[in-house]
Amino acid sequence: MPEFDIKKECPLLSKIDSPDDLRRLPVEELPQVCSEIRKFLIDSLSRNPGHFASSMGTVELTVALHYVYDTPYDRIVWDVGHQAYSHKVLTGRRDRFDTLRKWKGLSGFPNPDESEYDSFIAGHASNSISAALGMTVASKLDHGNRRRNVVAVIGDASISGGLAFEGINNASLSNSNLLIILNDNDMAIDQNVGALNEYMTRINTSKSYNKLRYKVYQFMKRLHLIDEKHRGLILRFNNSIKALLTRQQNIFEGLDMRYFGPYDGHDVERIVRVLNDIKDMDGPRMLHLRTRKGKGYAPAENDPVTWHAPGRFNPATGERVVEPTAGKPPKWQDVFGHTIVELARRNEKIVGITAAMPTGCSLNFMLDAMPDRAFDVGIAEEHAVTFSGGMAKDGLIPFCCIYSTFLQRAYDEIIHDVAIQRLPVVFCIDRAGLVGDDGVTHHGVFDMAYLSCIPNIVISSPMNEHYLRHLMYTAQTGKHGPFAIRYPRGGGVLADWECPMHELAVGKGRRLQDGDRVAVLSIGPIGNDVQSVLRELGDKGRHVAHYDMIFLNPLDEDILQEVGTRFSHVVTVEDGVVHGGLGSAVIGWFNDHGMAVRVTRIGVPPHFVAQGTIAQLRRECGMDNESIKYKILEIIAE
Amino acid sequence: MPEFDIKKECPLLSKIDSPDDLRRLPVEELPQVCSEIRKFLIDSLSRNPGHFASSMGTVELTVALHYVYDTPYDRIVWDVGHQAYSHKVLTGRRDRFDTLRKWKGLSGFPNPDESEYDSFIAGHASNSISAALGMTVASKLDHGNRRRNVVAVIGDASISGGLAFEGINNASLSNSNLLIILNDNDMAIDQNVGALNEYMTRINTSKSYNKLRYKVYQFMKRLHLIDEKHRGLILRFNNSIKALLTRQQNIFEGLDMRYFGPYDGHDVERIVRVLNDIKDMDGPRMLHLRTRKGKGYAPAENDPVTWHAPGRFNPATGERVVEPTAGKPPKWQDVFGHTIVELARRNEKIVGITAAMPTGCSLNFMLDAMPDRAFDVGIAEEHAVTFSGGMAKDGLIPFCCIYSTFLQRAYDEIIHDVAIQRLPVVFCIDRAGLVGDDGVTHHGVFDMAYLSCIPNIVISSPMNEHYLRHLMYTAQTGKHGPFAIRYPRGGGVLADWECPMHELAVGKGRRLQDGDRVAVLSIGPIGNDVQSVLRELGDKGRHVAHYDMIFLNPLDEDILQEVGTRFSHVVTVEDGVVHGGLGSAVIGWFNDHGMAVRVTRIGVPPHFVAQGTIAQLRRECGMDNESIKYKILEIIAE
Repeated sequence: MPEFDIKKECPLLSKIDSPDDLRRLPVEELPQVCSEIRKFLIDSLSRNPGHFASSMGTVELTVALHYVYDTPYDRIVWDVGHQAYSHKVLTGRRDRFDTLRKWKGLSGFPNPDESEYDSFIAGHASNSISAALGMTVASKLDHGNRRRNVVAVIGDASISGGLAFEGINNASLSNSNLLIILNDNDMAIDQNVGALNEYMTRINTSKSYNKLRYKVYQFMKRLHLIDEKHRGLILRFNNSIKALLTRQQNIFEGLDMRYFGPYDGHDVERIVRVLNDIKDMDGPRMLHLRTRKGKGYAPAENDPVTWHAPGRFNPATGERVVEPTAGKPPKWQDVFGHTIVELARRNEKIVGITAAMPTGCSLNFMLDAMPDRAFDVGIAEEHAVTFSGGMAKDGLIPFCCIYSTFLQRAYDEIIHDVAIQRLPVVFCIDRAGLVGDDGVTHHGVFDMAYLSCIPNIVISSPMNEHYLRHLMYTAQTGKHGPFAIRYPRGGGVLADWECPMHELAVGKGRRLQDGDRVAVLSIGPIGNDVQSVLRELGDKGRHVAHYDMIFLNPLDEDILQEVGTRFSHVVTVEDGVVHGGLGSAVIGWFNDHGMAVRVTRIGVPPHFVAQGTIAQLRRECGMDNESIKYKILEIIAE
Repeated sequence: MPEFDIKKECPLLSKIDSPDDLRRLPVEELPQVCSEIRKFLIDSLSRNPGHFASSMGTVELTVALHYVYDTPYDRIVWDVGHQAYSHKVLTGRRDRFDTLRKWKGLSGFPNPDESEYDSFIAGHASNSISAALGMTVASKLDHGNRRRNVVAVIGDASISGGLAFEGINNASLSNSNLLIILNDNDMAIDQNVGALNEYMTRINTSKSYNKLRYKVYQFMKRLHLIDEKHRGLILRFNNSIKALLTRQQNIFEGLDMRYFGPYDGHDVERIVRVLNDIKDMDGPRMLHLRTRKGKGYAPAENDPVTWHAPGRFNPATGERVVEPTAGKPPKWQDVFGHTIVELARRNEKIVGITAAMPTGCSLNFMLDAMPDRAFDVGIAEEHAVTFSGGMAKDGLIPFCCIYSTFLQRAYDEIIHDVAIQRLPVVFCIDRAGLVGDDGVTHHGVFDMAYLSCIPNIVISSPMNEHYLRHLMYTAQTGKHGPFAIRYPRGGGVLADWECPMHELAVGKGRRLQDGDRVAVLSIGPIGNDVQSVLRELGDKGRHVAHYDMIFLNPLDEDILQEVGTRFSHVVTVEDGVVHGGLGSAVIGWFNDHGMAVRVTRIGVPPHFVAQGTIAQLRRECGMDNESIKYKILEIIAE
């Protein structure tokens, strides 16, 4: 394949080192810029994989925003960073774009540590409106400075999250200078409706209408009919609900938010005009754009789901580079997906729940096989957990599958709606531990710590796929109340993963090998790495005991008693933060039982971890095989 | 005051031992039952205080629900239990009602452990719709049994929470047998609108309309136009948003949810008729009732805010029994409230945020004094935190005041929207520790554990009001990033709380007294109890060292070094769960530094704690003064 010559392929883009350069171009050249950005993204992402279709859909929007707004003084707050690749390319990161999602490279999501153009972190969905609203308040209180424009860009999936709704509901409160852009890329809109609506928009943006509106607002304010501080929010919200219920007006208008659109999100010159029109208005506004995922690259337009994150591909043909999988162990998520279907066939009480990740956690197998008993609730983790609680209360055994990092969203619901009532909800925590290239917002490293302070919850992690299946089998008996099973992203460890399932004794681990110098206690698949280290040490005559704890809660006290009696130094290894996880629990137990055992905790240290390969990140965290070996040798040498 | 003679005052109610008894009465007698329930509640709550106004407003609704539905087979899911007192009275708990909110007595909230009529826990707002939806699924999958009706009752404040929105959004998905009752008690509705709407309702409830509607639904289902599994939710939600945006219909109708109302929520016979009308319909429905807080008791109707939880009062006159406060220390929350105003006058970057608790956390002082800089965002804890993050990102110092137990709702936002970016948001965590009579859903005992696994957050707790002020002063410098300050419910310890403020060294505690047998490390106001125990011991010649740690993160390593060198046994005391709090951190530190120090952890044990006085609960948890003393003496005797 010929080298991509950016100067030749992208004559305009190659000279845009910051949005200032973009703003110097005449508006007629913007379509050309958009086309060059697409070429650039296709080339770059074909070699260094990332999220493809979302960013292809927001090229025009991004160009228009930086063209019209004075970034970085004005703020663009992206909701979930998948859409923000063109934004990175335009804001001084073009030449480093091939380091995207790599160790020490560019983050796959907006990150203020990386660029002043990234105004807020954007790894978890639905936060943009609330964060942007905060920025408008800061601008308003900063009387000495000129008005700062704030724009939140939110997709139609993210807006279903409860946080986004709370944000919209509150955005109406103040006369805040906030523009919400609804990037609607899911389905086309009926043309008639669109035409009617454009008519409405012309009315709305006309100067006389806005003047009138503003005068009415000022008048009401003088009469103290609005902005009554203490009850303001609730009254306003009630009004809007009532307006809805009585069919008087649309919710955004009811919330004092002006609505514009829908417009074609791929007509860059038009978006520029609309943005210029509504930019200097006061008060919260919503602009609704229709965009197409994968726009400008036919294979992605035709199959946006596959092209959400397609991996490497041939840019000329659209042929994806599929890594050979024959003989390799399947992914953890697929073992989960096949096993829940297998169990659900035998136990009619089992239901499955996912929050917008059916393919990500392989619950799609169950959604296909038994659609009555599997539920995709959308980006709504809180609802997923409370909904599971309701089902469990009336006799079902819900398997609630949520990525570790997103389960943080439902923390209160785990405590209040499940644990207090000891309901048999099975939390299948996918993407637990370091996740690699998605980076700081996505590592699933806190779950063991934040769950282990909650009473009544079984917390477990299998070392291999057979134990994942045994744990799922054990959990579905419903005998143990809330039951968390955590497993990592990516491929498992056994090609031969199918096995008969049996019930495990909850709170019982297993001794994998005996030893005489030191004992290692591990939980989860990282135990396999421990095994390989210990084999190496064993070959050199150093025999180290190894226990797979399987359960963090309840702890296997027999193992701890045995280990505490025989060894003066123990090593714990876990793929999660060390403060509050297995190591901490083990230290606490030895202390409480008066056993003077020293514990070396290996796990994620107390700082946030950026992106990279799992191997790179483990090395950085001192939890790769070399580090484990070194720490054991140090102890032996003592 | 004459004894309340229930047989004389409440001839009907005194014979209702379960809803079956209620259902045997003719409908014409229901107004009399309602009137008797009110008498009973007024008498009981005048002597044994609780939440008053909310429950007075839902008497008719409660009677009608139990009259029409076959409880407990049919499910009533209350959203926040304040409203559910009449429900308790009608469901076999009348004669134990005087134990409400007392130790070993009735919970102040619905609790399935207490009665089969309490279908779900209901201490935190906005969970009813999701839980109820789960129950409809369970009923649907339980083919062997007859249809079970499920009703969620949600107030107009709770419905603003993101979880409620996620629930509504999902309720539309399945053709679920769910009735949502919107108990709207905040403001009266325009009568004309109401009249128009009742007209609409008559159309909606007519048999022919419903038949037609159902046929259309079946037809579309056959054509596979609805219930498309994988994309169903998102499409449906988009449709509804678009319907809203294009002003075609109301959001609930857009979401395939039928709407009825508003009706007068105090006309019990009418509610019975409406419920009977819509009970056997299929598909999600919403019934909108207007009620009045405090209904039937003039003082409460006139001032529902004060009468939300009025304390004891004279039932005949409505005169409230006000406990004398002269000379007593003010509440912690009031010291916070006065201090934030004082600080904000000097530091213009300070802003205040509360999530629907302006009087509960005394941010109302700031809302009154500087309304531009204080925000009540309603029941929306997630938004409160992300909104604070946005403000902090652009230079403000937000003091985000949320009760410890409700901050659980915003756990992900603390990590993702604040901690990763090291933003200087000050979390003022009110109601931290055991809270007393609100019980299991309200104890603020997890915050130290769930925060201490997050990098970048300062975690602190003052022993007295002066240190609360010093901590607030230190936090508002913004130098330390995210900064949590936890303090308990109720009265403080210093009558003379005003003092000049100064900056504290972050991560530095203080030695309160030296000793020679054992050292106690405490954090927070429980240190005052430790002080009184140690004075008693000192009087008997037993000198115990005591350190007020002030900070859980970062830990004061100088103190730990000193203590670890001089003592072989240390006691930690904290008002929070022992697993993951101060004691666990101290044990971990001694372990990591090779110091063989035994630690006895005193705090909340790993089980959920019910209601009672703080003194009763501390005794139960082994953390009252006697228990602390006993444990120290045990160690000394070793």
